[in-house]
Amino acid sequence: MTRHFRAALFLLLAGPLAAQVAAPTLAGYRKEFGTMWTFDAPPLEYWKATYDFAPDQAWLDNVRLASVRLPNCSSSIVSSRGLVLTNHHCARSCISSSSPRDTNYIEVGFVAPSMADERKCQGLYVDQLQSVEDVTARIRAASRAATATAQAERRARVIDSIQTDCQKSTGFQCQVVTLYQGGMYSLYRYKRYDDIRLVMAPEEGVAFFGGDPDNFTFPRYCLDIALLRIYENGQPLAARNFLRWSSEGAQDGDVVFVTGNPGSTGRLLTMAQMEYLRDVVYPENLAAYARQLEVLREITKNDPERARRYDNTIFSLSNSEKAVTGYRSGLLDPDLMAKKRAFEREFRARIARDSRFRAQYGGAWDAIAAAQRELASFDKAARYRSFAGSQLLTMAGQIVRIPAQSALPDSARLPEYRGEAIERMKRQIATAAPVDTQVETRLLAAQLAAAKRALPANDPFLQAVLAGRTPEAAARALIGGTTLNDAAARKALVDGGAAAVAASSDPLIVVARKIDPLQRLLSTRARRLNALIASEAEKLGQAIFAAYGTSLPPDATFTLRISDGRVKGYPYNGTVAPYRTSFYGLYGRSAEFGGRPPFNLPARWLARADSLDLTAPLNFVSTNDIIGGNSGSPVINRNAQVVGVIFDSNIEGLPNRFVFTDEVARSVSVHSSGITEALRRIYGAGWVVEELEGR
Amino acid sequence: MTRHFRAALFLLLAGPLAAQVAAPTLAGYRKEFGTMWTFDAPPLEYWKATYDFAPDQAWLDNVRLASVRLPNCSSSIVSSRGLVLTNHHCARSCISSSSPRDTNYIEVGFVAPSMADERKCQGLYVDQLQSVEDVTARIRAASRAATATAQAERRARVIDSIQTDCQKSTGFQCQVVTLYQGGMYSLYRYKRYDDIRLVMAPEEGVAFFGGDPDNFTFPRYCLDIALLRIYENGQPLAARNFLRWSSEGAQDGDVVFVTGNPGSTGRLLTMAQMEYLRDVVYPENLAAYARQLEVLREITKNDPERARRYDNTIFSLSNSEKAVTGYRSGLLDPDLMAKKRAFEREFRARIARDSRFRAQYGGAWDAIAAAQRELASFDKAARYRSFAGSQLLTMAGQIVRIPAQSALPDSARLPEYRGEAIERMKRQIATAAPVDTQVETRLLAAQLAAAKRALPANDPFLQAVLAGRTPEAAARALIGGTTLNDAAARKALVDGGAAAVAASSDPLIVVARKIDPLQRLLSTRARRLNALIASEAEKLGQAIFAAYGTSLPPDATFTLRISDGRVKGYPYNGTVAPYRTSFYGLYGRSAEFGGRPPFNLPARWLARADSLDLTAPLNFVSTNDIIGGNSGSPVINRNAQVVGVIFDSNIEGLPNRFVFTDEVARSVSVHSSGITEALRRIYGAGWVVEELEGR
Repeated sequence: MTRHFRAALFLLLAGPLAAQVAAPTLAGYRKEFGTMWTFDAPPLEYWKATYDFAPDQAWLDNVRLASVRLPNCSSSIVSSRGLVLTNHHCARSCISSSSPRDTNYIEVGFVAPSMADERKCQGLYVDQLQSVEDVTARIRAASRAATATAQAERRARVIDSIQTDCQKSTGFQCQVVTLYQGGMYSLYRYKRYDDIRLVMAPEEGVAFFGGDPDNFTFPRYCLDIALLRIYENGQPLAARNFLRWSSEGAQDGDVVFVTGNPGSTGRLLTMAQMEYLRDVVYPENLAAYARQLEVLREITKNDPERARRYDNTIFSLSNSEKAVTGYRSGLLDPDLMAKKRAFEREFRARIARDSRFRAQYGGAWDAIAAAQRELASFDKAARYRSFAGSQLLTMAGQIVRIPAQSALPDSARLPEYRGEAIERMKRQIATAAPVDTQVETRLLAAQLAAAKRALPANDPFLQAVLAGRTPEAAARALIGGTTLNDAAARKALVDGGAAAVAASSDPLIVVARKIDPLQRLLSTRARRLNALIASEAEKLGQAIFAAYGTSLPPDATFTLRISDGRVKGYPYNGTVAPYRTSFYGLYGRSAEFGGRPPFNLPARWLARADSLDLTAPLNFVSTNDIIGGNSGSPVINRNAQVVGVIFDSNIEGLPNRFVFTDEVARSVSVHSSGITEALRRIYGAGWVVEELEGR
Repeated sequence: MTRHFRAALFLLLAGPLAAQVAAPTLAGYRKEFGTMWTFDAPPLEYWKATYDFAPDQAWLDNVRLASVRLPNCSSSIVSSRGLVLTNHHCARSCISSSSPRDTNYIEVGFVAPSMADERKCQGLYVDQLQSVEDVTARIRAASRAATATAQAERRARVIDSIQTDCQKSTGFQCQVVTLYQGGMYSLYRYKRYDDIRLVMAPEEGVAFFGGDPDNFTFPRYCLDIALLRIYENGQPLAARNFLRWSSEGAQDGDVVFVTGNPGSTGRLLTMAQMEYLRDVVYPENLAAYARQLEVLREITKNDPERARRYDNTIFSLSNSEKAVTGYRSGLLDPDLMAKKRAFEREFRARIARDSRFRAQYGGAWDAIAAAQRELASFDKAARYRSFAGSQLLTMAGQIVRIPAQSALPDSARLPEYRGEAIERMKRQIATAAPVDTQVETRLLAAQLAAAKRALPANDPFLQAVLAGRTPEAAARALIGGTTLNDAAARKALVDGGAAAVAASSDPLIVVARKIDPLQRLLSTRARRLNALIASEAEKLGQAIFAAYGTSLPPDATFTLRISDGRVKGYPYNGTVAPYRTSFYGLYGRSAEFGGRPPFNLPARWLARADSLDLTAPLNFVSTNDIIGGNSGSPVINRNAQVVGVIFDSNIEGLPNRFVFTDEVARSVSVHSSGITEALRRIYGAGWVVEELEGR
């Protein structure tokens, strides 16, 4: 791992500001920023002082190389033969795509009888982090410009070129990661393995036991695991770096580490940014989830075929609804907001005390607040004057824009039409599967009804799309009258270019032509404001980074982090939650709901209950700092042995997105000894257990 | 049951106020006043409309006569041979007093092998409600007087004489019950059965599984039952009225009724009264519980003998601490207080609209508020200038006062020295067991330390008791120097009368002589204010009763009520609580805490787990309206069959003391089929099950 940049950064930024700002506030606010440490700046002194834990570089390197990233999740290599442990919910596409025609492994589970029976996962890959390099100076030098928008464009170009150069010269997947809101830029290099096979997956009924109700809660009873294997050159990977298994697993009070890829947090956001999320973005998001869920739940209620088709979408929307409700609850919590306000007040006061820093950073908060106010002022118009609410309308919007955008030089295009995007878009338009027009009509009607409530009656969007009709009538006419659900018709329009688009009388193309300029106007205005916010936020990131250096971990960026914590129960529901649950509890919760979904257990779990040690641990909680993206992360002990695998946060943990706390916020994991107990007793997968245990 | 008074009351009070006030507010606020119906005014129309349930008078009479009252709890007759079902925690004194010398049935449980082996409970009795008579007019006529204090004294006298007359003429236990804060007075007549024997009690470990942490919560796993039997003339009672057993027990969604004796609620309190509780009474109560618990927990920590001795006290203090915290949480809940405020505002406005009612009732709210303010102004002095904090100091206070109070005519005495009170007090003083002086010293020191924090340094109480010493030194000197822990010394002082008390140099008597006038002054002042509040509250009770009649149930009075509700889960902890738990869940929660107390299970439960149907229901929740005093109440279905026995409320239910809600507030019961499952499989008490099931 490239580490030389650390000294350089301290040389660059440590100075009077650090001296003035760091020490006094550090003690007061350090904890609120959590423990998502990067591997190039592990907090060795803090670990030593807190846990008497002093890992050497070999420990860190092994753990980093064993903690591999999935496209949207985390995972780890857990045997010398490339066995990979992750969550069932991270491997869904692999599990369903590897099912034979007449079976659905999601439903019935899968256990390879032997290594030879492992099944290829279409399109799946894992990325292994090879090295990290500081590229802050290079990016900052190349992105100087007069306006924030111009800066943002230059920065995007230099980042793109750094990534492309790296990819060419190393053969690795290269990504420039923006840390501290631009206080620091790091180039991450990954080795990609793209032959991944399914070894074992339990039935969804036990992997996602308790379904949406129990999602984001604890006590919990989920065997949310999947076992994959990395192949290289058609052979199981001969892994040099892997995590050994702890059969005993997590015990109450243990110090444990989570290594994975938290997706995003907002701990460095200003009050104005958080208030914008709380009052503008989240309420609209929640309304949109609720709107779509209402349609999908109703339309799938008595229709098992549709229910299966929309199962993943409904799960994903419910999950987002629960998560965003939890995030917003933090922003509505007066204590939490008071903490943020106190930090901001103190930090602003410190900046204001020095004329140089005041000049450099002092205006950022007000500039951000003003930009957020302006964004809020036209949020509804920007949100609803769009191609949203229908996949066919979205494609109509792309079909309308492709000719015009193609005609412009790359740098003048809308961002989503730059580089290879247009070619990718064309392929998707030409190959997309037909939509369910009944669902499409209902979803578009719901979107238009929301637009009608949100916009003034004379809004040009409403005039263009509704044209005096009710939302339902408009949606019926648009979806009923379009030919765009036919791939050939779409391809003909795309191939026909500007002339074909202009001549089309397809009702979706007609309205898309009218929406296009309305949408472009506001999205350009919003982009300018967001660039300004990013630019001011970068200043704050620099100021904070200057003050604290890497003693504060950066916000999450879906890159590898290591978080420390303890296995620990917590006060809940007027009593105490134990640090772990049991198989007894699993069967209990199922019985207590009469075995009705989502509390039903798979047949082999009912048949083999007696063979289990029912007192064995199934799930457990710890104080590690995680968020979406951490799913599938290994939980390891001081000896880098796997004691569990992260699969969720409790609902009390969701406000950690903005302020980290560990009084009642907990990470939820599957316990390693629950995994081996189930593999042996329920799944008869002794050979997998032996591999995990290194025998 | 005497029912003629209902017509009379309506004649007396129904009039223009009822016409104006009742209809419009009833719909809006009815529900907030809960469902603790009296048996003489069952809400037949509401039941018919809500549940299509129309019990006849025979149903109601049978249920009333089968629902017998214990000294501090509720219970029911559940067989034709006088078997009584209640809670383990209601039968503790019976269970421990009936234990042989070398055994503690509280710990190891008890099952009578046959009826002949049932064991007498010393001092226990049950009361069976025979009839209810309206005595409002008689009491109101006899208690007219110029001042609130004089009214209160007259009322006390007429109540006393009604009770005495009734007792003499009927041989029943007679009690005048104040309903609607004096809006209505009813004479309750009870038949008392005082030969009660223990049939079966489980081990405390499973009766109170989860201990203080799980107390007031759900999901829950307690076999909190005890079975007693009423004997009459040395034979098991040949019960004409009893509840039959439902082997199936409570099912999700069932309509169920709870018949028992809720102790006290405050749903008719004014905002000023509730704020006084919230800001003055409850914080002081909570501080007192915490103070005593701190001493007792510390002193019993490494002392198993003392731990046993103070186990009940610690439980009772913890229970009160959790309950009062819950009650107060309601008063701190802005939504709940907003509801109360809205009701009060509307009710005041309605009263103010009519000049006659304005004159009669309109001043009550402000008068109560003023009295509460005055009480608050000297609350700390009244609270701490007292004999509290030490049993010996309390006795010293009584010893000092007995001669002076005895010399006064009964009506001029302090209320607690009237009638037979002095003789009872003398007997207690002469027979009280020695106190643990180490505990006594610590508790008194804690009380004095609290007094020192609360009172100004020159307060005469502090000067008298501390006399310049630290609280610890004063407590050591007082408890170390007194002879009052010797019953003979106390008796000598009592027998010696005023002269002996005046001559005593016992340090506790010396300080008690100084505290006496200080305490009397403030308690008299507080009594006057409380009488005024009661008198004004009575007006409001009359106004409310006039408006709503018995369509609103009265506040709880530890008399028999019937509450309707449904068996129903609820949202909790971000997910849903099932309507019932299971034996699986019991073993799960124990395993999840490693079997450590209070989550340890008795040996026979561990040995016989395999013989149980682990999916069988153990506890369940329903929306019935209960509060302390309801412990041991039967839960019955439409056919008056026992489907369970109440033993707790969830923590969300505690604010129901002030405003009834049933969104998440729940009553917690032991399930009837869990009871028979345990009796058969764990306790080998098949003969009891057969009796319950009527075979």
